[in-house]
Amino acid sequence: MIHNPVIDTMLQRKSIRKYTDQQPSDEVIETIVRAGQQAPFAYQTGSVILSRERKRHPFSAPLLFTICVDLHRFELIMQQRGWTTSCNDLFIMVLGIQDAALMAENMVIAAESLGLGSCFLGGWPLAAKKLRQQYKMPERVFPLVGLTMGYPAEDPPVRPRYPLEYHLFKDEYPEFDEQTIQAAMRVMDEGYLAQEYYRQANYMIPLQGKRDETYTYDNYSWTEHISRKLGLWLHSPRGILAAFKTCGFKLPGMREGKKD
Amino acid sequence: MIHNPVIDTMLQRKSIRKYTDQQPSDEVIETIVRAGQQAPFAYQTGSVILSRERKRHPFSAPLLFTICVDLHRFELIMQQRGWTTSCNDLFIMVLGIQDAALMAENMVIAAESLGLGSCFLGGWPLAAKKLRQQYKMPERVFPLVGLTMGYPAEDPPVRPRYPLEYHLFKDEYPEFDEQTIQAAMRVMDEGYLAQEYYRQANYMIPLQGKRDETYTYDNYSWTEHISRKLGLWLHSPRGILAAFKTCGFKLPGMREGKKD
Repeated sequence: MIHNPVIDTMLQRKSIRKYTDQQPSDEVIETIVRAGQQAPFAYQTGSVILSRERKRHPFSAPLLFTICVDLHRFELIMQQRGWTTSCNDLFIMVLGIQDAALMAENMVIAAESLGLGSCFLGGWPLAAKKLRQQYKMPERVFPLVGLTMGYPAEDPPVRPRYPLEYHLFKDEYPEFDEQTIQAAMRVMDEGYLAQEYYRQANYMIPLQGKRDETYTYDNYSWTEHISRKLGLWLHSPRGILAAFKTCGFKLPGMREGKKD
Repeated sequence: MIHNPVIDTMLQRKSIRKYTDQQPSDEVIETIVRAGQQAPFAYQTGSVILSRERKRHPFSAPLLFTICVDLHRFELIMQQRGWTTSCNDLFIMVLGIQDAALMAENMVIAAESLGLGSCFLGGWPLAAKKLRQQYKMPERVFPLVGLTMGYPAEDPPVRPRYPLEYHLFKDEYPEFDEQTIQAAMRVMDEGYLAQEYYRQANYMIPLQGKRDETYTYDNYSWTEHISRKLGLWLHSPRGILAAFKTCGFKLPGMREGKKD
């Protein structure tokens, strides 16, 4: 493992959910956003809405960025040039989500290097309707993810990750044996348990239907938590389809002319 | 603008398409991949396949990473735990593409900090069928993007970006007047022209239908290039839908049981 300030900044990064009252300066904000902008892109699709209304933010974070997949800006340019978009919106989204996320990750690491912490809010698209009104977003702008930011008022440990052999595959994708799977589970679960992550958050995803809760904070950990997210939540694609539709994107499977 | 080694690394980054013969060491590769792993995630969905068969790579790059949206790994864990995925694949993809891109951007910047250059290959999903065979990828693993890497044998200038006022919006999304749009176009177009980007690449996207070519490398630049991409290519979503389907993901609008 090689170390330098860039790599160490990445390795030290963890989500921050408690912030001090200190407002980051305009210079700090612009530096972070400029660093984000310089990320590689397919269409330079990522744009950023900044709110400083701390009272309304998750974790009362001093800064709340809404990271957008923004086709509006470029379609204004196309209009000037006499072009209209013909490319399908699903492919545009596959590239556009990447543009926005590459940019957001630069922002996260740049912020970290300036002593700020951050936390992503993945449910943002499901609030698309509200966010569009609040921020007066035009059509063809999709609120992909929220990003809170500010100076940290907590110092949690770095969170565990899968073992490298469960993540990097040389020449071809391997067939995992049970030992490898269980070793990956152990690293994640014992790691989060040792840090008392869910106990401190005081949060287990509630079971539904006939399943009885058998877990306590002594054994509820990462693989159970993510299993419940993927196993219990958001069965229907209607909510996320409606979010795209309300933002003026047309994906396959949308019902024409009907409110999804 | 504040400067430090992290931010300067991001600001200096540009795509590299010519590489020296030097093979990056295993330690360099593992450092880059570990830095990628530590990026924030929703489900820790990003995984990486590494090829070192230089002859087969775009730009003959020494390293070729295939960045995957990988549900297979976690679904093996869910199996161990008695869970199956219920969440819809469109929402999984919206978060999973972010997971993979956040990770990939850390890799790009970590590589940069170690003196390596890189270039993304955005068309990767459209080669999903071939990539799956080549790398023996199981179902529920989607090849999101290619990433070439190696020591640079060229030193192109940093590429332009939109002016900050076309990218960062405070409190609400603005209405752009024509002046602002044209100023953004000028920064991009004059920037790429001054760098002779398309002339050196010797590439204009060919027009189709009744449009006659009126551009030369004296005036063909970024906004015309991207307008042609979005205005001429990939009208039908069938190709990208088929890519998801061949990887075992079920998105709205797929025809049941039929080869898309």
